[in-house]
Amino acid sequence: MIIMKSEATQEQVNQVVAEIQKYGLRADVSRGSFRTVIGLVGDERKIPFDHLAVLPGVKEALRVEIPYKLISWEYSKSIEGVSEPRIIKLGEVSIGNGEPVFIAGPCAVESKESLFKIAEAIKKAGASILRGGVFKPRSSVHSFQGLGAEGLDEAEEALSWMQEAGKKFELMVATEVRGESQVELIARYADILQIGARNMYDQDLLTTVARRGKPVLFKRHFGAGIEEFLSFAEYVAAEGNKDIILCERGIVPVGKGKSYTRYNLDLASVPAIQKETYLPIVVDPSHATGRRDLIYSMSCAAIAAGAAGVMVEVHYNPTEALVDAQQAITPDELKEIITACRKIRSVVASRKNKG
Amino acid sequence: MIIMKSEATQEQVNQVVAEIQKYGLRADVSRGSFRTVIGLVGDERKIPFDHLAVLPGVKEALRVEIPYKLISWEYSKSIEGVSEPRIIKLGEVSIGNGEPVFIAGPCAVESKESLFKIAEAIKKAGASILRGGVFKPRSSVHSFQGLGAEGLDEAEEALSWMQEAGKKFELMVATEVRGESQVELIARYADILQIGARNMYDQDLLTTVARRGKPVLFKRHFGAGIEEFLSFAEYVAAEGNKDIILCERGIVPVGKGKSYTRYNLDLASVPAIQKETYLPIVVDPSHATGRRDLIYSMSCAAIAAGAAGVMVEVHYNPTEALVDAQQAITPDELKEIITACRKIRSVVASRKNKG
Amino acid sequence: MIIMKSEATQEQVNQVVAEIQKYGLRADVSRGSFRTVIGLVGDERKIPFDHLAVLPGVKEALRVEIPYKLISWEYSKSIEGVSEPRIIKLGEVSIGNGEPVFIAGPCAVESKESLFKIAEAIKKAGASILRGGVFKPRSSVHSFQGLGAEGLDEAEEALSWMQEAGKKFELMVATEVRGESQVELIARYADILQIGARNMYDQDLLTTVARRGKPVLFKRHFGAGIEEFLSFAEYVAAEGNKDIILCERGIVPVGKGKSYTRYNLDLASVPAIQKETYLPIVVDPSHATGRRDLIYSMSCAAIAAGAAGVMVEVHYNPTEALVDAQQAITPDELKEIITACRKIRSVVASRKNKG
Amino acid sequence: MIIMKSEATQEQVNQVVAEIQKYGLRADVSRGSFRTVIGLVGDERKIPFDHLAVLPGVKEALRVEIPYKLISWEYSKSIEGVSEPRIIKLGEVSIGNGEPVFIAGPCAVESKESLFKIAEAIKKAGASILRGGVFKPRSSVHSFQGLGAEGLDEAEEALSWMQEAGKKFELMVATEVRGESQVELIARYADILQIGARNMYDQDLLTTVARRGKPVLFKRHFGAGIEEFLSFAEYVAAEGNKDIILCERGIVPVGKGKSYTRYNLDLASVPAIQKETYLPIVVDPSHATGRRDLIYSMSCAAIAAGAAGVMVEVHYNPTEALVDAQQAITPDELKEIITACRKIRSVVASRKNKG
Repeated sequence: MIIMKSEATQEQVNQVVAEIQKYGLRADVSRGSFRTVIGLVGDERKIPFDHLAVLPGVKEALRVEIPYKLISWEYSKSIEGVSEPRIIKLGEVSIGNGEPVFIAGPCAVESKESLFKIAEAIKKAGASILRGGVFKPRSSVHSFQGLGAEGLDEAEEALSWMQEAGKKFELMVATEVRGESQVELIARYADILQIGARNMYDQDLLTTVARRGKPVLFKRHFGAGIEEFLSFAEYVAAEGNKDIILCERGIVPVGKGKSYTRYNLDLASVPAIQKETYLPIVVDPSHATGRRDLIYSMSCAAIAAGAAGVMVEVHYNPTEALVDAQQAITPDELKEIITACRKIRSVVASRKNKG
Repeated sequence: MIIMKSEATQEQVNQVVAEIQKYGLRADVSRGSFRTVIGLVGDERKIPFDHLAVLPGVKEALRVEIPYKLISWEYSKSIEGVSEPRIIKLGEVSIGNGEPVFIAGPCAVESKESLFKIAEAIKKAGASILRGGVFKPRSSVHSFQGLGAEGLDEAEEALSWMQEAGKKFELMVATEVRGESQVELIARYADILQIGARNMYDQDLLTTVARRGKPVLFKRHFGAGIEEFLSFAEYVAAEGNKDIILCERGIVPVGKGKSYTRYNLDLASVPAIQKETYLPIVVDPSHATGRRDLIYSMSCAAIAAGAAGVMVEVHYNPTEALVDAQQAITPDELKEIITACRKIRSVVASRKNKG
Repeated sequence: MIIMKSEATQEQVNQVVAEIQKYGLRADVSRGSFRTVIGLVGDERKIPFDHLAVLPGVKEALRVEIPYKLISWEYSKSIEGVSEPRIIKLGEVSIGNGEPVFIAGPCAVESKESLFKIAEAIKKAGASILRGGVFKPRSSVHSFQGLGAEGLDEAEEALSWMQEAGKKFELMVATEVRGESQVELIARYADILQIGARNMYDQDLLTTVARRGKPVLFKRHFGAGIEEFLSFAEYVAAEGNKDIILCERGIVPVGKGKSYTRYNLDLASVPAIQKETYLPIVVDPSHATGRRDLIYSMSCAAIAAGAAGVMVEVHYNPTEALVDAQQAITPDELKEIITACRKIRSVVASRKNKG
Repeated sequence: MIIMKSEATQEQVNQVVAEIQKYGLRADVSRGSFRTVIGLVGDERKIPFDHLAVLPGVKEALRVEIPYKLISWEYSKSIEGVSEPRIIKLGEVSIGNGEPVFIAGPCAVESKESLFKIAEAIKKAGASILRGGVFKPRSSVHSFQGLGAEGLDEAEEALSWMQEAGKKFELMVATEVRGESQVELIARYADILQIGARNMYDQDLLTTVARRGKPVLFKRHFGAGIEEFLSFAEYVAAEGNKDIILCERGIVPVGKGKSYTRYNLDLASVPAIQKETYLPIVVDPSHATGRRDLIYSMSCAAIAAGAAGVMVEVHYNPTEALVDAQQAITPDELKEIITACRKIRSVVASRKNKG
């Protein structure tokens, strides 16, 4: 929609109309006594709004259409005739079917022995997906970067442990893909390919990962608004892969002084995003808060807010973990969380008026 | 704690020690082969850290003590020997005793008739505190400012309706005090004096309100970190009034483009704050989200996160509300929320390991 | 402007039109093949947008008019026929006439002797307005709160020193009004009444201060967007007082970890605001950065960005200052800054194409 | 530095000391009457702080060392004995030698003809580096993605135009590398490899680019604090490549409502960063503001703040640009900016007391 300045001339209006028509859209001109508004009829995404905004006489060029059409309810309902949320099925596991799903495991894969110990424990606690990083994104070049940093053979070995642990304990396996060059390797071993928050904007990686056809666990960047987050998920959907599990993991903190949590977990994004898209969204309270003493509360809150699941870092002995020890919980705590989350889910699921 | 530069001289260390002693504290000097650190022993709050930071040879001056000592667990446990959360009692109502409390009512008081209609409805739905604004803080001078803007007589009349409705329907009454000059008047009619987010930093108002001795509902400013929020609550406590109900209502959104919620509800602040202070904290999802279709989810999430209660805007016919129509819910929705919140509270209350 | 949902019925459109007309505006209905848009013709500020947004069939209700009309170029040019920036004259001092103005002085008034020493030094350095706090807003109840906290007599004495120093050294005098109850007293002694960042949203204070008729130095809150900042300046203008000096002093920092400056100085707000309003805007790099080693650079940058002046904290011996020692500069540094700023102003003033 | 809880036992202190020694550092224990502090002597970066923080009895584990040692003044001065800023030389062009450098060109390379026209114009205006995107990072999968999206041959052709234009008009050439797979190709044609803001955290890309040995133009992510920005520049330096040109381009806006600039240009980061590192920093006001009417002011402000140069988008006819038309300026405006910036640089360069 184009809002003209009050002093815009008829010629300027005509120029805007001509520009709109050039891109194959129709222009609806509405003249008021004070100002003229030109509506765009057709696929707004074809129009370079920047162009329209700098045309003479234009006050503002506003998009009315959403930039994440393929994953929107509007598209799903009007084009595909589907009005149910998408359920992503992986073997026995279903994500988005109403039952909360629990993704758990160590921050980084450290050794086969510790991985198996953790995998067994999370399975017993009730988790259904094993997570574990082989290629770790780290803020400092001087920190432990995961086994992936030690060479491709070490990376592959660590990935094979993940796969083996998944089979042995009947868990689906999710691991992060940090760069394009890792996609091929990781896709051979993992069931779910994870795009970390720091790579949310990496469109080449998104496209390459999407093309593997496996479910994508897609984390929101900590500097991204909801619209941006969904617009980048659209990169995955544009490759024909709609098995996207969105993940909220906190945005940058605001304000002076000591921050009590590492990031700011934006739980209102959960119901807000569910009004926009049919894709499921899970929450990662471990990275969001960076504090194991808040994981229970924030997991419960995530499910109460309507999340399809929770992803947490678990270690049988958090003080021994090589990475992010401060945010890992024990298998016992995981069990307690799963029990509480299931009860909470049944409370909110019983709501009649879905508003 | 003072961290000296690696090249700091002995004389510079001595000067810092002398400065610390001037304020009646003791200095613990720790010399390493690389750098010297000087610990402060005593009441750090007596020291102007800015001074220490600019002394020659000083690299950094770090506070170790918290600036909200009076309301902290540390103070409560070590000085007062109390290790239980504070319960604020108001007639039949208790805030912070484990039972979630519901504060509800219109954004602005509009007429006696509509107020009574709403008060009756929220009582039936299960709320125990009636909220309603007489002096409304508004972003635009050209908007409806509440009945308080129409004159002192109108304000007093509106306040008397609140009091009357409270008595008739057995509800405690909370209303906002926007400026020092209103304290006297409002304190005659309300049971709880509310300090709005925009006034969080108004130390003169905090002090004046605190001195009335009535419970204070104290909202976090949308630009304030947790430490600042608690430091300003300390202004109330410093007047000897510890009947403070903290309230999280969202912080400024971050990121480009369309914002899907008005503010960013920081639910992780709930458990994080409960680790710091014995005061109860409630959550206001109405102002935080600005969207009535998210109130149910965010109320449930607030209670799951451990909040002592929820404060929501209710109108029997939201589309008729003069202010904030987009965020008001109906009494029926309130009832549904209260039912769900109570169940969720019982789930999280049964946690054994309180971590 | 009201954007209807694509499935909106004719009846719903009619209802919106009726609602608009109820408030005395005219509705321009534009029907496209895809959606209908309803433009508002008349004074948009009379309409409660929240109401329109919740009417059935409405997708979005967008304001096109700005909420700070009285201080806008649009108003000035079209209603008053004035297309020059407003120049605020105070004795010999002019703010907004193209010559940068320098407001300097101690953070807090500490003693008559030190105040006079600083006043003399800043006059010599080239400043024309003396600043100094008597009522200091502080984050901690346990910090020095200014002489104003010691009693009304002490406050009045400190104010009289300011006035006397102003007369003796031919400086205009600016000081902060922290609460309504101080307006009467301060207005007797100061030439410019300052509203601090923390009070930006305090509409009662704004109104009371505005009515005194003296120039108002109005600081942007650190959590406020530009639109909010200008909307609250409108509270002052609505009382008929347009002698408003806007002041940018930094917004809350964003991001994890150590903050290198106290706030985030938003210098792009200077030219952005000058495109919106005819009022002058000055910059306070002292509170924004909290670091005296950045004051020179950020003062120069402020003038280069088009600011009408700079406000800085000066102390003849910064390490002795009772408040904010880390951000005070010496009179020598002030002189260096003034010299550089004047040269920079003459560079940017010579621009031909004012874009 | 490890701060123990006041109730920590001797045994707990010993455990922390043992843990520190395990990593080859020495522990300085300072016992006060109130609490014990343990300083770390040696290379703090070898220690996993998360581990220390979760040991029993520990209150806080604070890093004192900076995580960007290799690019810090401290390292440069104490290890390499160099106390001058780094000057990056590229043929006739020097970056960081005190003369401001101007990087200009189209947002996206569109055609050979338009590129040559722009290159010629910016050379005449006084720029020395040509910028132009071949692989464009875009927020929407439905937008124009640069010629790079049309195939590798088209990408290579566009890159060859850049190289040719550089030779013909004596300009160095900078272009963005969006993914690892493009490094080899782009390094054959460009003089400077640009890492865009969205890729700041992409450590694999940083490492791969750094190894080419060419100067790297490294943009700050819009969600990154200064410490994070410099910590990721360290990834480049860790490969032995210190020809890093830092670039400030704005951080995510904060606050409700309409944003008047696309991002929030953090100009105080310029002098703040220059206190930390010997690397030069340039400013990109085009992406930061997204408004061509603010480019002049913000370019001048950047140089006044101490930036080593400015990077701007230029188009001979902005309204024809395929991407970002709203932020491009004309060659005439560029000339005006360069003239003003050079004068401002000479003003600030003449400062005696460099503080």
